[in-house]
Amino acid sequence: MKIYDFEGFPNPARVRIALKEKGLFEDVEFISVNVPAGEHRKPEFLAKNPSAAVPVLELQDGTTISECTAITEYLDALTGEQELTGKTPKARAVIGMMQKRAEAGLLDAVGTYFHHATEGLGPDIETYQCPEWGEHQRERAVETMHYLDEVLASRPYLAGTDFSVADITAAAGLSFADFAGVDMPETCNHLAEWRARVEARPSLGA
Amino acid sequence: MKIYDFEGFPNPARVRIALKEKGLFEDVEFISVNVPAGEHRKPEFLAKNPSAAVPVLELQDGTTISECTAITEYLDALTGEQELTGKTPKARAVIGMMQKRAEAGLLDAVGTYFHHATEGLGPDIETYQCPEWGEHQRERAVETMHYLDEVLASRPYLAGTDFSVADITAAAGLSFADFAGVDMPETCNHLAEWRARVEARPSLGA
Repeated sequence: MKIYDFEGFPNPARVRIALKEKGLFEDVEFISVNVPAGEHRKPEFLAKNPSAAVPVLELQDGTTISECTAITEYLDALTGEQELTGKTPKARAVIGMMQKRAEAGLLDAVGTYFHHATEGLGPDIETYQCPEWGEHQRERAVETMHYLDEVLASRPYLAGTDFSVADITAAAGLSFADFAGVDMPETCNHLAEWRARVEARPSLGA
Repeated sequence: MKIYDFEGFPNPARVRIALKEKGLFEDVEFISVNVPAGEHRKPEFLAKNPSAAVPVLELQDGTTISECTAITEYLDALTGEQELTGKTPKARAVIGMMQKRAEAGLLDAVGTYFHHATEGLGPDIETYQCPEWGEHQRERAVETMHYLDEVLASRPYLAGTDFSVADITAAAGLSFADFAGVDMPETCNHLAEWRARVEARPSLGA
């Protein structure tokens, strides 16, 4: 397997964490796509992902898969049980729901704030910005932190008793929030405790 | 199973189509949530879905599942083979990827245009609007139609040889586009042919 990504970016981080959780990290050849330099918008990369986003998983037969949820589900099915995306239809549904909430409400919301209401990746990359919408999404990200905090008041992980892709997405979202300067509210104690616990996993280590 | 939704709305339509494809439609008790009247923002409904959106699937044990992708995946696993979301890891990855592209680029983009750059559901419901972002998402929806048209030049369905949730999402997106006044470009012949074929399925019929 090959993965085209840019180390340190939020969505690449989601897939790298999933690979480490599954023990598959060493089986992947990583190919760096220089997003800050605009390499993701060049024809060679657009042929792999017309959405111009990293990461992209390339299978041995040449099939290219983008969208983190699709990539992580594929990786989860490759080996072992489906620990990250759920072993039963009901578990999968709860994990899928919580994952989507963390993605849309936190990670993507922070991304929209970063790309639209800050300098983002600079004027060569941020060719269209809508600052008002970016600020609105910053508020949404903070609201989502409060929501996740509430959820974690009654369970150890976002989808219940076990660590899942929902936790990976939320952890990547909080890292991105740090980077973009979106602070976690001080009252979010459950979220802060969860974060410390999740970040202590080897898959999230440096 | 119970489903809380509002008939005729785009996301409820996705789940209703999936239910008919799976032969499960008659097993569901539908409970109407009057979204145009703001019923989705009342505490009783927020207890079922804090994201204040329909549809919500309620299982017999009281578990509530929101987010269409999570609901349709659950339904697909309930009976038969996983015809709609994919029978193999690779098929699931391709379907998941195409579904996300149709969702983010078409259905959600049309939704953002409708709720932000038109009167949407009226001033009582549309309490915050960002018209500039709405117009930008209208452009994104049209770009996605061109992209889907290109995809369909070389395959009968969005994820390959078989009908899938990616097609359901795109079909619901095009219906929403009609409603919101976002016209399909006349040059999108492959997309128009695909649409006629998909809409002839009993699950999409009146």
